[in-house]
Amino acid sequence: MAARPGGTRHATLKDVAERAGVHAGTASRALNPATQGLVSEATVRAVREAAKALDYRPNSMARGLKTNKTFMVGVIVPDLSNPLFPPIVRGAEEVLSRAGYTTIIADTDNDREREGESIAALRARQVDGLLVASASRDDEAVRTAVEQGVPLVLVNRRTESANVPTVTSDDRSGIEKALEHLVRLGHTAIGHLPGPAHLSTGLERARAFRHHMSELGGTLAPELTVECSTYSVDAGAVAARTLLDQAEPTAILAGNDQIAVGVLDVLRERGLRCPEDVSVVGYNDMTFMDKLSPPLTTVRVPHAAMGAEAAQLLLRWLAEGPPAANVLTLPVELVVRGSTARPRAGG
Amino acid sequence: MAARPGGTRHATLKDVAERAGVHAGTASRALNPATQGLVSEATVRAVREAAKALDYRPNSMARGLKTNKTFMVGVIVPDLSNPLFPPIVRGAEEVLSRAGYTTIIADTDNDREREGESIAALRARQVDGLLVASASRDDEAVRTAVEQGVPLVLVNRRTESANVPTVTSDDRSGIEKALEHLVRLGHTAIGHLPGPAHLSTGLERARAFRHHMSELGGTLAPELTVECSTYSVDAGAVAARTLLDQAEPTAILAGNDQIAVGVLDVLRERGLRCPEDVSVVGYNDMTFMDKLSPPLTTVRVPHAAMGAEAAQLLLRWLAEGPPAANVLTLPVELVVRGSTARPRAGG
Repeated sequence: MAARPGGTRHATLKDVAERAGVHAGTASRALNPATQGLVSEATVRAVREAAKALDYRPNSMARGLKTNKTFMVGVIVPDLSNPLFPPIVRGAEEVLSRAGYTTIIADTDNDREREGESIAALRARQVDGLLVASASRDDEAVRTAVEQGVPLVLVNRRTESANVPTVTSDDRSGIEKALEHLVRLGHTAIGHLPGPAHLSTGLERARAFRHHMSELGGTLAPELTVECSTYSVDAGAVAARTLLDQAEPTAILAGNDQIAVGVLDVLRERGLRCPEDVSVVGYNDMTFMDKLSPPLTTVRVPHAAMGAEAAQLLLRWLAEGPPAANVLTLPVELVVRGSTARPRAGG
Repeated sequence: MAARPGGTRHATLKDVAERAGVHAGTASRALNPATQGLVSEATVRAVREAAKALDYRPNSMARGLKTNKTFMVGVIVPDLSNPLFPPIVRGAEEVLSRAGYTTIIADTDNDREREGESIAALRARQVDGLLVASASRDDEAVRTAVEQGVPLVLVNRRTESANVPTVTSDDRSGIEKALEHLVRLGHTAIGHLPGPAHLSTGLERARAFRHHMSELGGTLAPELTVECSTYSVDAGAVAARTLLDQAEPTAILAGNDQIAVGVLDVLRERGLRCPEDVSVVGYNDMTFMDKLSPPLTTVRVPHAAMGAEAAQLLLRWLAEGPPAANVLTLPVELVVRGSTARPRAGG
């Protein structure tokens, strides 16, 4: 049970910060002789007065939580140059910096071993907690950190390896909206190029595809699905070539926007027009997807909001102890643009 | 004068790390009781043996340099969701992590006050040095940090406020290549939409434009230049509307790719075709610029290499003391795509 203002309890750093009208991080710096030179003298004075008035004792182990905080949070992304991740980082950073936390970003370069190294390095930096956007469904590094009690929230991808608070978007409904759109246009032979099945987004979108296709009455021939090895333009192009070699889809649902860009390249390479010969749907609505030729129909995922919500969950953990390992699922919307149309008559 | 292997000198942490076959950061963690739990027991043993063999004394103030290192470097960017900056960060991070450093990224949201706050926050974190990609030409926060002796390297943008090592790309040659291309195609009425003049990239590209245009024999009418308030799609569109209201350019050189995307939008809005009615050239060659309609002719800037070079300069500073405040200028190349063509006959 969290202590409430008005109850009898020890003053916290946050109370001091509020009374002095500064961020908790600023208050922490002002009270630490090693760092107070970085804060203005007036601020140091105000924070000290507030601490005195509230009888603040810096090292009180109130409610058994770690008090020797660094006010640093680590954010682990698989690839910062994938336009999907900067909005997640910015959304998280806005929330964290308002609360006085500094964000440390680590990039795993899509390498599962480097994820473990990044977690170790950030823990060596004494971060107060972690936001992990790089989780695999089977994720040893996340499991270990959670078992050792590290405050940790997943964002964008889930894991089956640990029970932790997770913020994702609604993959099922995104795929359903995309398929409904294609089926309404008259498509039945719909190709699917899902992301890798070792990532939750790959697996869950592929499952949703199979589920909704059978409900909507489309074709579920196995040759219409080709899994991509990674979420990239190149892997999308490779999968699109395989798909077009073995089947004749009138529409292709891509695992994400980068895969869709690879599909558009291959259609051009083979002399097929989009959307006249083949409709294409992406996923994420990254920057510039509205500027492609044709502009891409895609599922818009609220990445900045996901980052912000994940940061909120982590802050709650840091303030009140571990929250329930809920999965928060944010809604998505279909954005219809020029890359989808009715299939050719007799096509 | 730096001590050389073979001379008589005290062993450094780097020597210990090399002998143990690990990163300096790992060696530091292995020798610190507070963090050695994050390193494997075998590594702790190997590092301790190496330290003993070399008679390593952790707190020796060898050569007057800071020895109480945190192995953290701060990287300050103006906007992480601008696709220009993630490659700079990744390029720097690769070099830094190989040397055992953790990278902390701070985003100033294009706000000059927040740059000062970010520098203060990172210094409060005891970072060993800073890479700053957000500098303005007149930059109080950078000047203050440099005066206080913070190891600091600029990347992408220069400042006139301090003498510090800086890594940029060759703005003059980039503009010259773009203009030569347009003039060779037959354009003389070339519009220019430079970035804001308080940033070095804005000012230097605008200067280069004026210089080369007069050399190449193009028109330098003042109504052909409209400065953009920021490097963004929206600011590019605003400037493009002003330009097209007051002049009739057959080609437009945009201050960067985002501005060029804004120009393409406005051309479409006004029923003008690119490149038939107006040619457009961007700057940077961000991801997906080859997928626009038409694909964008632009100047390719080696952002990852700039980040890597800046990190190297900072590492040299941290190892050997302040280097000369040189400006390292990396070469750029023009990438010709579908957005540029000969002007219409009689156009």
